[in-house]
Amino acid sequence: MAPTPRLVAIRHGQTEWSKSGQYTGSTDLPLTEDGVEEMRTAGLSIFQKNNLISPERVTYIVVSPRTRAQQTMNLMLESVPEERKKHIKVIVDEDVREWEYGDYEGRLTSEIIELRKSRGLDKERPWLIWRDGCENGESSEQFGFRLSRAIQRIRQLHKISHEKNEAADILLFAHGHSIRYLSALWFGLGVEKECSEEQKKEVVHRYDNNGELIPDVHMETYSHMVSNPNFLLCPGGMVVLGYSHGCLDEPALELSGAFIPQNSICLT
Amino acid sequence: MAPTPRLVAIRHGQTEWSKSGQYTGSTDLPLTEDGVEEMRTAGLSIFQKNNLISPERVTYIVVSPRTRAQQTMNLMLESVPEERKKHIKVIVDEDVREWEYGDYEGRLTSEIIELRKSRGLDKERPWLIWRDGCENGESSEQFGFRLSRAIQRIRQLHKISHEKNEAADILLFAHGHSIRYLSALWFGLGVEKECSEEQKKEVVHRYDNNGELIPDVHMETYSHMVSNPNFLLCPGGMVVLGYSHGCLDEPALELSGAFIPQNSICLT
Repeated sequence: MAPTPRLVAIRHGQTEWSKSGQYTGSTDLPLTEDGVEEMRTAGLSIFQKNNLISPERVTYIVVSPRTRAQQTMNLMLESVPEERKKHIKVIVDEDVREWEYGDYEGRLTSEIIELRKSRGLDKERPWLIWRDGCENGESSEQFGFRLSRAIQRIRQLHKISHEKNEAADILLFAHGHSIRYLSALWFGLGVEKECSEEQKKEVVHRYDNNGELIPDVHMETYSHMVSNPNFLLCPGGMVVLGYSHGCLDEPALELSGAFIPQNSICLT
Repeated sequence: MAPTPRLVAIRHGQTEWSKSGQYTGSTDLPLTEDGVEEMRTAGLSIFQKNNLISPERVTYIVVSPRTRAQQTMNLMLESVPEERKKHIKVIVDEDVREWEYGDYEGRLTSEIIELRKSRGLDKERPWLIWRDGCENGESSEQFGFRLSRAIQRIRQLHKISHEKNEAADILLFAHGHSIRYLSALWFGLGVEKECSEEQKKEVVHRYDNNGELIPDVHMETYSHMVSNPNFLLCPGGMVVLGYSHGCLDEPALELSGAFIPQNSICLT
């Protein structure tokens, strides 16, 4: 029997702004030299030295349109044999791009807090991006909606492979907020909301399944956060999202990340 | 400045019952031969080959009284130099032992479901251990109370080291349910409840701090789960619990587990 499908989400490596703590949404920065070196080493470690991810099991890569995510992907894939790489389909997905920070783009948390204060905001409680979102950028509901849509698509790809009894590790290269947010929604955090009539019309874009179109997905509901999920995720950090009991109706978070004993049988 | 304190929680290696899926609470089973081999390799990988945990930073080990947890600890510590081991204080803590399964000890999930059905239970909704607990064993409230107490103690040790500007990785060797439950409470899942007058009298037992008694901790509230946190954790799996922004008031879950790029600066 094929192993249970997984989604392995990898945050891009270090940039000048991840180093300084500046919010980086649509600004298209490359990795620093340290970031390049680190992600190359990470690829070697994960695909070869420790064999934490078997390249044979990777079916799709979903990647943010931003340079830093794509560069991270390319550096890590240097450790995957050329022959194998041909079989992995790469999908650039706008839905997994970073939070649109609007007025807060390029700023530090302390600067954002001051800016909001000067605009008369946050008099009763401190700013929380997970609840309050970004002025002239995305609200938490908007961010949650598009990440819920990305999750639906990925689960559909998992389902198709699972029904064929094929392994399906999907890799996701994205960002600090988008991965933490998506991870939280994946294993059931956040609040569920019915889609508006307009949102219902937005069919979940099809991912092309090796030439065959996969069936459309319609969403009746989506989820979004109203509080901080309290996660740590460094540049280059890697999250493993899977399913309990090998059952695709039971999405779960792998608490150990990718570093788990090779022969363990997981019944939890 | 010393790195932010962490709690690294390690589930014991494979036993005959973790292999078969039988609930193992107080039953005192040893590891299987595969389990022994795997945990020895894991120790080598974590402390030496990949240097995921620096033995120099480990201050305390908190371990369940059960053989399988202690055996796992000893196998992994084979990869820590003798000289360094002398400086690590080992605390056997009843509060981190596995859930007391009561009537369900040694049984499979399917058998428990049948047993409960034969007793007229679960007519309206299926059994959920995280909410319904175990007959003649511990309720979820009871389990949550003692794990909250263990968390308070560990945070106190972190605080003492942090104030002295000393590194403090604490290792915890425990069990599938106790680690998943403790992890969920660590980063804020579950519901908070006021301690009863009796519970308030139960001072959090002191851990001896290298000969000096550390101050008592009193708990006004504790937390417990009412739903499944949806975590995967295999035998030998390892969870990293820390704090956001280096701030001990912001407990958080490391989404990547122990496998994070060595030079990353984490600002999230």
